Amino acid sequence: MLQTYNKDYKERVKKFLKGQHFMHLIGFDLSVIEEGRTEGWLEIEQQHKQQKGFVHGGLVATLADITAGFAAYTLVPEDQHVVTAEIKVSYFRPAVGVKLHVVGSVLKQGRKINFCEAEVWDVSYDSKGQEVRHLAAKATTSMATVFPDDRAP
Amino acid sequence: MLQTYNKDYKERVKKFLKGQHFMHLIGFDLSVIEEGRTEGWLEIEQQHKQQKGFVHGGLVATLADITAGFAAYTLVPEDQHVVTAEIKVSYFRPAVGVKLHVVGSVLKQGRKINFCEAEVWDVSYDSKGQEVRHLAAKATTSMATVFPDDRAP
Amino acid sequence: MLQTYNKDYKERVKKFLKGQHFMHLIGFDLSVIEEGRTEGWLEIEQQHKQQKGFVHGGLVATLADITAGFAAYTLVPEDQHVVTAEIKVSYFRPAVGVKLHVVGSVLKQGRKINFCEAEVWDVSYDSKGQEVRHLAAKATTSMATVFPDDRAP
Amino acid sequence: MLQTYNKDYKERVKKFLKGQHFMHLIGFDLSVIEEGRTEGWLEIEQQHKQQKGFVHGGLVATLADITAGFAAYTLVPEDQHVVTAEIKVSYFRPAVGVKLHVVGSVLKQGRKINFCEAEVWDVSYDSKGQEVRHLAAKATTSMATVFPDDRAP
Repeated sequence: MLQTYNKDYKERVKKFLKGQHFMHLIGFDLSVIEEGRTEGWLEIEQQHKQQKGFVHGGLVATLADITAGFAAYTLVPEDQHVVTAEIKVSYFRPAVGVKLHVVGSVLKQGRKINFCEAEVWDVSYDSKGQEVRHLAAKATTSMATVFPDDRAP
Repeated sequence: MLQTYNKDYKERVKKFLKGQHFMHLIGFDLSVIEEGRTEGWLEIEQQHKQQKGFVHGGLVATLADITAGFAAYTLVPEDQHVVTAEIKVSYFRPAVGVKLHVVGSVLKQGRKINFCEAEVWDVSYDSKGQEVRHLAAKATTSMATVFPDDRAP
Repeated sequence: MLQTYNKDYKERVKKFLKGQHFMHLIGFDLSVIEEGRTEGWLEIEQQHKQQKGFVHGGLVATLADITAGFAAYTLVPEDQHVVTAEIKVSYFRPAVGVKLHVVGSVLKQGRKINFCEAEVWDVSYDSKGQEVRHLAAKATTSMATVFPDDRAP
Repeated sequence: MLQTYNKDYKERVKKFLKGQHFMHLIGFDLSVIEEGRTEGWLEIEQQHKQQKGFVHGGLVATLADITAGFAAYTLVPEDQHVVTAEIKVSYFRPAVGVKLHVVGSVLKQGRKINFCEAEVWDVSYDSKGQEVRHLAAKATTSMATVFPDDRAP
């Protein structure tokens, strides 16, 4: 159902990622960039946490915003951009593991608004080295398209 | 209408702020801590931005979460905490100024859920040095109380 | 800050209200229609309630949607419409009074998205006949503009 | 992962549905009641519509609230209830078909908050009588548990 209007969306996203200063500050990056879907991993460090030792909810929201936003961005024509109109994040459980796996996807592509979701998985390892995953948070967001003739988006 | 159950809430918040590693990474701090209300300022630097030169939406969400969460935290008894159950952030305009002024407040105090709001103001200065303020984003959030006998919140 | 592009917005809203079949089923109507703001009252009857005797949350969401949507509608040019892209409703307390007072307003007008809020007040009367008001719910919503050349919005 | 604490949840839900006056006004009912999941259908009539001929967004929110709320309700012990703390509904496309199919489910069961989702499908029939389905809206919601010793929820 999803359709990209830009064959070179991977290069375009990678170019834009270079300018994502706040994402670099956090230490996050996208490792999967597909049509209408992106994924990334974050090694959890102390700098990502709040006072209880859990990953900060604001960081979780940031990763959800990045993956969902770039998922939408893969779909729009080259002369268009997307901006987050709104995002809601629900926190199911504290993220306390070794790393986060974040998946953003477009649920409903639209000309002016792309409705997206993002899942933030908390990943740790048990005593046998088996990966243990929990869904720590889920986000829903409206990504608005910015057209060339839009004034400041 | 709001009522704190903890006279020493200011000291308690200040103590907790020390452990807010992610807040320190960003460079944010609270400068006002009142009953059911907190405020803070952030000098905007390149590390806070995304590829278009705007303050990152994830950072905006983080500041909203911090101010609203600690606003709720000022009200609960000493043996209780609060965690963000969900937050929704609406982005009214790109934040492109010199600094951000963030105000979090409790709109409806509850025993188990505190409904809070946060406003993120974009502040710049015109040619005469006059402060110019725009409401860049507004957040609404449900802050859940964590009781002593709760298992992992 | 708000600006209407349609002098005849009151007549336009009133005309549209006639076709609001679901609003008529509920028994609601708008009594105040201003630029970027509408208000209405609902006498609470048994048909509006759920099994606990409280006003149904879906009804509360409906009234919030109507008042916020028409608040946005007062601002757009004659050849444009608005549709609800998303709405979030937070329920502060059960509505159990005699009537509801609902106020919808535009917080940030935009060319493509109007960010609106709605407050739903629960109104009852004490033994001396004095009005007692509680904020029962608050909603935030993104109202998307529909332009003449949009295909099905 | 979901677990009910009440074997007789189906009878309990059915008993409560009798008191859902607003649901009866709309003409909706639940046809599937499982652990952590409910479903229902609504034949679309004129009384469900707004001025453009689309199903009213408030009605869509109401059906999402009912199915998600009762999905959560199937899981709690007999002496507990659930109330909607907040709900967000995203409208993907106008609902204009013959009927709506609504599915509510619990995504993350918690002792104090159940995070739920609801999907509202627009169903129509093509010239060959084949069913055509579109996802018209999706909701996410926090359903708060009401314990016996809670004062007014």
